[in-house]
Amino acid sequence: MNKVAVVGYGNTKFSNEDKPIESLLVSATKSLFDQTKNIDKNDIDAVLVSTNDNAKYLSAILSELTGISPKISHTVENLCSSGTNSIVSAYSYLVAGLADIALVVGADRYDCHGQILEWDSARGEFKHPIFWASMFTKAHKREFGTTEEDLAVVSAKNHTNAKLNPHAYSDKTYSIDDVLQSKFVTDDLHLLDCSRPCSGASSVLLASENVAKKFEQPVWIKGIGQKTTSASLTKNESLTTMTSTKIAARQAFDMAKIQVNDVDVAELHDAFTICEIMALEDLGFAKKGEGVSYVRELYGTQDKKINPRGGLIGAGHPLGATGVAQVAEITQQLQNKAEKRQVKNVNVGLVHNMSAAATSSNVLLFQS
Amino acid sequence: MNKVAVVGYGNTKFSNEDKPIESLLVSATKSLFDQTKNIDKNDIDAVLVSTNDNAKYLSAILSELTGISPKISHTVENLCSSGTNSIVSAYSYLVAGLADIALVVGADRYDCHGQILEWDSARGEFKHPIFWASMFTKAHKREFGTTEEDLAVVSAKNHTNAKLNPHAYSDKTYSIDDVLQSKFVTDDLHLLDCSRPCSGASSVLLASENVAKKFEQPVWIKGIGQKTTSASLTKNESLTTMTSTKIAARQAFDMAKIQVNDVDVAELHDAFTICEIMALEDLGFAKKGEGVSYVRELYGTQDKKINPRGGLIGAGHPLGATGVAQVAEITQQLQNKAEKRQVKNVNVGLVHNMSAAATSSNVLLFQS
Repeated sequence: MNKVAVVGYGNTKFSNEDKPIESLLVSATKSLFDQTKNIDKNDIDAVLVSTNDNAKYLSAILSELTGISPKISHTVENLCSSGTNSIVSAYSYLVAGLADIALVVGADRYDCHGQILEWDSARGEFKHPIFWASMFTKAHKREFGTTEEDLAVVSAKNHTNAKLNPHAYSDKTYSIDDVLQSKFVTDDLHLLDCSRPCSGASSVLLASENVAKKFEQPVWIKGIGQKTTSASLTKNESLTTMTSTKIAARQAFDMAKIQVNDVDVAELHDAFTICEIMALEDLGFAKKGEGVSYVRELYGTQDKKINPRGGLIGAGHPLGATGVAQVAEITQQLQNKAEKRQVKNVNVGLVHNMSAAATSSNVLLFQS
Repeated sequence: MNKVAVVGYGNTKFSNEDKPIESLLVSATKSLFDQTKNIDKNDIDAVLVSTNDNAKYLSAILSELTGISPKISHTVENLCSSGTNSIVSAYSYLVAGLADIALVVGADRYDCHGQILEWDSARGEFKHPIFWASMFTKAHKREFGTTEEDLAVVSAKNHTNAKLNPHAYSDKTYSIDDVLQSKFVTDDLHLLDCSRPCSGASSVLLASENVAKKFEQPVWIKGIGQKTTSASLTKNESLTTMTSTKIAARQAFDMAKIQVNDVDVAELHDAFTICEIMALEDLGFAKKGEGVSYVRELYGTQDKKINPRGGLIGAGHPLGATGVAQVAEITQQLQNKAEKRQVKNVNVGLVHNMSAAATSSNVLLFQS
């Protein structure tokens, strides 16, 4: 079986700028070219675009704008997890021998169309993701006594981490009190409990084993887990468990023959504060009900192990870019190139990316 | 290396009905379930949707509506070739060992957003595909003396074939004169030289070698070729050659170790009549400039070898469904299940699917 490595990455700053989707895609590609030694555009066999934008044929357009003539090109969309879906697609082309080098570029605009769950008429007017996040929060409070302050710790921690990420949307730090004093958006969630849609793009370059060696410090994809349980909330085992995340994690750990205790650094999908706590539990970093104390310890010790780039809450959440940015961050971390955000002595990294109330999840494991 | 087979297919009728995209997707999936023996929904590892529709998260929605809980699910978009891009993605998951059974469902509505080449401002107001087809036609006329009547033969032939396809949009036959007397849309192209956007969906089921044997008459994917040359017309070697098709064909034939003379039945992307003539030449069925006489011979002998289901011109062209419908047809043909459309003694089939003036092309080879 071919092995596959991440051998390059690029980012734009995440912002509220009104830039065309094509410009965002080109900027993240240029950032990757600028940072990746020994790259030859003629060797790129696949260009995949991850986005929720309504524009069509973006992979061919990006290819033309950046001087690439790939074999394979298309757009991948799966709401908030489009990025890791694209990366798994690219991985598959490489393992299947259809490509040796694949470029994946994720981008979305602040006004992108994946932010509202339009299809789910059963939700009535409650189509914004914050409503499922509120349900998760209420359930977690009821079952485990989780408090508003516990949730605020996640936001304070991730904004603190984002302050050291030059591409993050947020450049402010917030105390726990600041989070608690931000306005309520629902009964349970403050504004600072939420990630922000924004404009941004990220890119990664994947290479198969035989060509990965010409690049510096390849980071290997060791485990892949994916699960779709439903498109609504009907099939979660409970409102305090993200079933698709649990199943995807088990697959990824089995494939990689790695345990959760081996993970040194992780990017979790904190679309809302409750999501980081639940993800820590469902991925196995903490037992059920103990996600809160896990996060409080990280915050107390200023440990950047979880969401070193600031998570979606601190870095911003341009939907199609997020999964790609997560993989770019883990690559940087495992290459010891994450500068002020660098977590020490890292060898194994994890990415958790999900969509729409965790009705689908992807978990990826990386090793340097 | 895992082998991959097509082991099932489904279709809706292509029509001008105003059906929701979700209904189209579900109908083609149900059609596949109804026709495929020994299928167990629990065994489906991947659900890919091929579409140009702006709705998001359609693979998860289709999965929920049809009772599937796959690992992998997302939408693939690449304009008119979204279908074969999706099938190659599914093929890769199977070869890579991430999935054993994959469902690919393509659908679009008559008013879908992939029909106009919105991005290409260099075209001025000439953003409808008919304008590049007119340029191709003018160039072919100039270089090879191709006539309006030659083009009309393609349309007459494909409408005749479509009459035997119960899912085709068109149920009329047209003589060469009928085509010539249909109204001019541009200087060079009559209405009946053009394929029609419509509402429709098609599906195929792919299985890896170890599970394909539990299905009846697996049809093996033997060759895959893909090429993106550009997103505009800037990189074709000439206006009478579809460079991406030529390159993709060479890859596919090399991978399959099959010659063009071995191909018994083929689905070509006749978005306009000129495209079938050029595709015959660029795929190697005919020498350059001899596509016309090749088509005239087929029409004269009522040979259904090329576009037995009626092509895009006769069957209709719901963008995301087209590539999937082409593969479904070749599967039926190689299983000897194509009823009145059946081409005799078929063993090797070819699918040619392309986008936007052949700025990208996919060529697939199948063997029973």
